[in-house]
Amino acid sequence: DQPLTVIAGPCQLESADHAQMIAGTMQEACAAAGAQYVFKASYDKANRTSLSGKRGMGIDAGLSVLDGIRKEFGVPVLTDVHTEAQCAVAADAVDILQIPAFLCRQTDMLLAAGNTGAAVNVKKGQFLAPWEMGNIVTKIESTGNNRILLTERGTSFGYNTLVADMRGLPQMAQTGYPVVMDATHSVQQPGGKGGSTGGQREFAPVMARAAVSLGIASVFIETHDDPDNAPSDGPNMIPIDQMADLVTTLMQFDALAKANPINI
Amino acid sequence: DQPLTVIAGPCQLESADHAQMIAGTMQEACAAAGAQYVFKASYDKANRTSLSGKRGMGIDAGLSVLDGIRKEFGVPVLTDVHTEAQCAVAADAVDILQIPAFLCRQTDMLLAAGNTGAAVNVKKGQFLAPWEMGNIVTKIESTGNNRILLTERGTSFGYNTLVADMRGLPQMAQTGYPVVMDATHSVQQPGGKGGSTGGQREFAPVMARAAVSLGIASVFIETHDDPDNAPSDGPNMIPIDQMADLVTTLMQFDALAKANPINI
Amino acid sequence: DQPLTVIAGPCQLESADHAQMIAGTMQEACAAAGAQYVFKASYDKANRTSLSGKRGMGIDAGLSVLDGIRKEFGVPVLTDVHTEAQCAVAADAVDILQIPAFLCRQTDMLLAAGNTGAAVNVKKGQFLAPWEMGNIVTKIESTGNNRILLTERGTSFGYNTLVADMRGLPQMAQTGYPVVMDATHSVQQPGGKGGSTGGQREFAPVMARAAVSLGIASVFIETHDDPDNAPSDGPNMIPIDQMADLVTTLMQFDALAKANPINI
Amino acid sequence: DQPLTVIAGPCQLESADHAQMIAGTMQEACAAAGAQYVFKASYDKANRTSLSGKRGMGIDAGLSVLDGIRKEFGVPVLTDVHTEAQCAVAADAVDILQIPAFLCRQTDMLLAAGNTGAAVNVKKGQFLAPWEMGNIVTKIESTGNNRILLTERGTSFGYNTLVADMRGLPQMAQTGYPVVMDATHSVQQPGGKGGSTGGQREFAPVMARAAVSLGIASVFIETHDDPDNAPSDGPNMIPIDQMADLVTTLMQFDALAKANPINI
Repeated sequence: DQPLTVIAGPCQLESADHAQMIAGTMQEACAAAGAQYVFKASYDKANRTSLSGKRGMGIDAGLSVLDGIRKEFGVPVLTDVHTEAQCAVAADAVDILQIPAFLCRQTDMLLAAGNTGAAVNVKKGQFLAPWEMGNIVTKIESTGNNRILLTERGTSFGYNTLVADMRGLPQMAQTGYPVVMDATHSVQQPGGKGGSTGGQREFAPVMARAAVSLGIASVFIETHDDPDNAPSDGPNMIPIDQMADLVTTLMQFDALAKANPINI
Repeated sequence: DQPLTVIAGPCQLESADHAQMIAGTMQEACAAAGAQYVFKASYDKANRTSLSGKRGMGIDAGLSVLDGIRKEFGVPVLTDVHTEAQCAVAADAVDILQIPAFLCRQTDMLLAAGNTGAAVNVKKGQFLAPWEMGNIVTKIESTGNNRILLTERGTSFGYNTLVADMRGLPQMAQTGYPVVMDATHSVQQPGGKGGSTGGQREFAPVMARAAVSLGIASVFIETHDDPDNAPSDGPNMIPIDQMADLVTTLMQFDALAKANPINI
Repeated sequence: DQPLTVIAGPCQLESADHAQMIAGTMQEACAAAGAQYVFKASYDKANRTSLSGKRGMGIDAGLSVLDGIRKEFGVPVLTDVHTEAQCAVAADAVDILQIPAFLCRQTDMLLAAGNTGAAVNVKKGQFLAPWEMGNIVTKIESTGNNRILLTERGTSFGYNTLVADMRGLPQMAQTGYPVVMDATHSVQQPGGKGGSTGGQREFAPVMARAAVSLGIASVFIETHDDPDNAPSDGPNMIPIDQMADLVTTLMQFDALAKANPINI
Repeated sequence: DQPLTVIAGPCQLESADHAQMIAGTMQEACAAAGAQYVFKASYDKANRTSLSGKRGMGIDAGLSVLDGIRKEFGVPVLTDVHTEAQCAVAADAVDILQIPAFLCRQTDMLLAAGNTGAAVNVKKGQFLAPWEMGNIVTKIESTGNNRILLTERGTSFGYNTLVADMRGLPQMAQTGYPVVMDATHSVQQPGGKGGSTGGQREFAPVMARAAVSLGIASVFIETHDDPDNAPSDGPNMIPIDQMADLVTTLMQFDALAKANPINI
């Protein structure tokens, strides 16, 4: 098994400078710790709780920034797509297309993403059981694309709360594809602040560590230099100045986990 | 308060003849019972559990059938849309555009639907609290359209199970918009049959009656002449030969409920 | 089917005078509406959230008050028991022994209650599926006692929240025993106020009406003349001056429901 | 921080010989791995799903066997109590009294257990949020006893399913008391087999490892030489011949976790 991949970046793109600062900081932290690094950011937040929530740079400016990150830093880049038409466009600028959790059962989206030939990371819907991901995999595989990743980002648990079921990680791994733990979205409190989503930032490292100890392929973490003033997902993002230590610790758990694989 | 509206039809369009048979039967049943009637059917099932699930007639043929129903029977017609682009097209053929539950937070979908001027029925996501529907209403209202309906279709409750929280009906009604109880989808067992969704058809009348007793505006029921062989949602659809009796009973509860309004 | 039975009273006994006031008011309201009436109160609250929560009059004084109610008003009386030893003692003073939800799987409690020959009302645990009540019924039946009632009081739904699944009522009725809807405990928010349990009093009539519309045998409602200052369960009790109207309305739904039985 | 304590043994006592075999095997495995060991077994299963489920040796014979284990092996012994009266009796034979999850809010049980002066391990009810354990701790502390342990054993998640929320472990640790992960009960499927409880034995090591990686004080694991034929909890017990390897691996994660403490 390969060492842990860290998918990290700001929730939404704010500017080229900001994206570069995050990418550079994370690239350095991951290199120091021996982790593979993938930059992540969104050019559009298409399902904000409130109409007044900031949506981001938009697809044209956003993809240009993402393509720049890829070229300047030489790291793979991931972004999420929101319509079928965006798939091919985004695939020209990034390496991994991400299907948002709410859209994970939209057949045409999955097919459009698969047809680009780019890697496709599907977030398991908050309304889905882990074993239902097999049906989603089959949809993408039907395009001849088997560069698939599956991400746990929490499951609905009563109102305004998610829970991350650790059993879901090995269950999704039974598909044969790499499994990613989204440590920051799984501690969201959806709609928990009325007009926006709350979160429990302090528990993101808890989720990351518990999942990495199970030998998963990758951890997904949103990070920001000033989470409290970030345009989205501030309540659950990890301050970037804590990331180097976090990645270093996770790599120790990763090495131990991969020396002791779990078989279910 | 007006008498109960019954939104009913097959899960997916199968043919013009089949749609007309259902529409005619339901129109007659509703007229006999004093209920208002809206025909419902889907031209595309865009989020089937499995890739091999039948998706339906497609948008062109489907909208033609729906427009025919509207003209032949003189009843309002509802259908669900799956992309922004479909909104304007569908609004030419039907009276009510429905936003599927998984898509209920996609801002651009809500705006596109609102901008058509058609009535918009939003299904509350299985991952959403009833009080979060206010944010969705605001998105649609921003288009100047206030012909909005809000539908309860069950909330995630563990894996492969939904629960319908009766408190959600008066809570959604606090937005000031009509509330619809989807009696057949709320008894689905999502992914419960592995490659398809299971259901507990026998509990759909239970859900309908409990909700109607609270004085809601409308009940949504999928029905079929042969549910066990229907191309989708068979496990939870009500056989059409039971619908006349069901509507008759519901109208009695509706009259009693509206004579005794609940104030929360 | 017989008309609805209303089980009602204060959460905990406060004094003989207070119990008599509630019993008299409810007896009158039920008689006027044509409902059967059962008085309910607890002599001990054995599982308060906090150590500092008031527990009540205690078993000796409490049973004396309950026995007095029975004799003075000629109504059946229900109280909850908390240990095996209390069963026989309480059965001398009341007509129905109630097994609290947390204790619903304690085999020796169920056998001790059954062995008294008194009627036994078991509240379904917040952690139990409706279809698991069959195993509990079998335990009580093993004592030769088949005077059994089964009560829905809400199921755990995330943290600090309960949800009442309307399907559970007909499912429990399949045991052949009368089913009771506990309209006030099912709107509790357990531990929701930190050191005590919160509640949504305004939804108790919603729960009662939805359940009664399904043709259940009985509704359970805690009531108080001053809920905001009651020693326990104030947030979810219904003010007693609203009870006459509520019972009158429920009886109309009850009559309609029993004229139109649900068969599942 | 001290090394991990492993609380392990059969679900229920079957005979002195059987208990000694388990205790001896586990003591050796724990010593080899550097773990502290506590023997666990129940003398009575007081809340079996079904009346016909085997309940065990009973209190007199059972406590005699437990006392024998303590003397012969020199290891601390834990057992669960089911009534107030049992607390003092059991405290003469064992070191740790365990309050079952269903009984975790029964005030008199907590006080009786606290008053013995023995250590008290409280299992968090399946219906309780982690932050509600503070109220339970206060009840026990009121007896002057602060030898308290708090155990996560899963939270209700829909019907017949539990989920273990990893956030609950550090949340309970905020009380200041040692936190235990019950790796085998948290993978139960309560009532999942109709007349008995199912389980997912294969996920117990997953739960144990994820929790230990967070730096908890102790892991609780039920084990048996022949789980498929055990009188209770067979579906979720771990075969004893797998325990030495499991404990060895857990100790590596424990060491790493305690070198990198989580602060929330």
